[in-house]
Amino acid sequence: MGCAESEARLATNVLLDADLRGIDSHGIARLAGYVRLWEAQRINASPNIRIVHESPSTAVVDGDGGLGLVVAPHAMKIAIEKARIAGTGWVAVKNSNHFGIAGHHAMMALEHDMIGLAMTNASPLVAPTFSIERLLGTNPIAVAIPAGEQPPFVADFATTTAANGKLEILQRKNKDAPLGWIQKKNGDPSENPHELKDGGALIPLGSDYEHGSHKGFCLGAWVDIFSAVLSGANYGPWVPPFVAFLSPPSDPVGDGIGHFFGAMRVDAFRTTSEFKDHMDNWITRFRNAETIEGKERVIIPGDPEREISKERKVSGIPLNPKVVDDLKALGNKMGIAF
Amino acid sequence: MGCAESEARLATNVLLDADLRGIDSHGIARLAGYVRLWEAQRINASPNIRIVHESPSTAVVDGDGGLGLVVAPHAMKIAIEKARIAGTGWVAVKNSNHFGIAGHHAMMALEHDMIGLAMTNASPLVAPTFSIERLLGTNPIAVAIPAGEQPPFVADFATTTAANGKLEILQRKNKDAPLGWIQKKNGDPSENPHELKDGGALIPLGSDYEHGSHKGFCLGAWVDIFSAVLSGANYGPWVPPFVAFLSPPSDPVGDGIGHFFGAMRVDAFRTTSEFKDHMDNWITRFRNAETIEGKERVIIPGDPEREISKERKVSGIPLNPKVVDDLKALGNKMGIAF
Repeated sequence: MGCAESEARLATNVLLDADLRGIDSHGIARLAGYVRLWEAQRINASPNIRIVHESPSTAVVDGDGGLGLVVAPHAMKIAIEKARIAGTGWVAVKNSNHFGIAGHHAMMALEHDMIGLAMTNASPLVAPTFSIERLLGTNPIAVAIPAGEQPPFVADFATTTAANGKLEILQRKNKDAPLGWIQKKNGDPSENPHELKDGGALIPLGSDYEHGSHKGFCLGAWVDIFSAVLSGANYGPWVPPFVAFLSPPSDPVGDGIGHFFGAMRVDAFRTTSEFKDHMDNWITRFRNAETIEGKERVIIPGDPEREISKERKVSGIPLNPKVVDDLKALGNKMGIAF
Repeated sequence: MGCAESEARLATNVLLDADLRGIDSHGIARLAGYVRLWEAQRINASPNIRIVHESPSTAVVDGDGGLGLVVAPHAMKIAIEKARIAGTGWVAVKNSNHFGIAGHHAMMALEHDMIGLAMTNASPLVAPTFSIERLLGTNPIAVAIPAGEQPPFVADFATTTAANGKLEILQRKNKDAPLGWIQKKNGDPSENPHELKDGGALIPLGSDYEHGSHKGFCLGAWVDIFSAVLSGANYGPWVPPFVAFLSPPSDPVGDGIGHFFGAMRVDAFRTTSEFKDHMDNWITRFRNAETIEGKERVIIPGDPEREISKERKVSGIPLNPKVVDDLKALGNKMGIAF
């Protein structure tokens, strides 16, 4: 595709990390889709990623239409460099594309004894509370916090009740979705996991107004504004779709999609050793909390992905046959032996 | 109480702002409780609020046991000063107390054309997903974002399905709570708004695991760690209670309760006028989104509070008779005519 080898490696790492961590919807299964977007000239394989505005603790990065898998690690590196000098670094990105799992980018901060944050906006699939229009993406937030003896705290979640990947699992299994995940075209509750195809929408975290879906809407809106209004990317319903068969809106309000990254040096607040000791205590106390009968334990954010990763590093990453077929076809097309 | 007049005014402003904005649970109704905590020597009326650690874009503030209503505006001012020079400012606070409504502090950034953030931890009332232990507070997050012609975007929400104040309203009305707000001592779902008195717990945003309560837990945990593990305050179950009749834990892991504040200069990212134009466009597009039949409009975060505030500035703040009695008793005790 004309992508520099170092950048191909960067992107590969992000996809592999998703597959290792069990987030199969964001791993190698996406590769064929990325190539289709490149074929449609909606991804630039050799972008000139550059800072277009900055202050001691901030930067805006223009991703030059590059793949988010490449743009995001570059931007997160800038956040980390800023944090080294200013204590914290905050980078808003415009003119980018899908960046894979948010958690990967946030976790880049950990080895520097920094806290990492990553957010991105995404194609509109989510209706604000009381609306029938799809105006927000599943807009994930990731927060990675280092600990000492304990593994790090890594939260990485869509700001909807359920991520789109969970619907895809139900579609494959031919099962109904729980009420509160999706709504019909007219806003009525729905259990049909195919509802999005009929004009339905995902619901913000909270499921309905009585259970706080307006808070989930606040979260999704926050991510959208930090990722795109701060950076100059497209926001809300103007975010271009991630699939080549859907055209981007003809009246863009910015460039590409937007991300937002943060890095905070722990020792810009207190000594790293004190902080890590208390994180260990925090994690231990919560992990050992008394459970509801029948529940094994309280899950510390990052635990499940770490466990899957450990297992898959030994036994390999299971691939859906459909994904294998896609990859074979891709290999043939690009002249790469499978 | 020995509180400097300027600081009494600061605190009064925060309480009045809560009442004006319709968040009656965090307004003047709290005054008697604050005085009881002062009588129990758990609030310092003349604190020496000071920076104990800093970097160009960060600071840790020791609140010296002062009232959060006083400590928080001081800390937010420091965040704003840092942002002036470094682009952003981030202040973690330890050794503080209840700080009123988070939104007030976040909104301090707006007049400086900055984005404001405020978070605080709080007395443990919330059980993590799968647990029966109360380990987190309702740990609110507030984000205030300036706009141009439009009023600012101001989100301010507890990271639980419902804030404690909503349960108090149901208690007064003798009504059941919706399922998903609270759980019994053993973790079973409950509709009893008095459940907290019997060892029950509030539930993180999401209501149950199937509807994403683990994401609400992530949010509450994030607030707890930023507010207290970064600053050196008490976290999780060690956060001291806000009421004088409950004793603080005998084995503290830090000093008082913790807050976290942020200020981000808009023009550290792009020109203020460009940003404000796009915020106006964002707000207008979302406010005018097509609604579900029977729903009047999509609520932009900050709209409801602004409307109540406008009304109450004309018609006054209605006070619950019980609150009036409390204030009269307080006036008599302190020798202040009512």
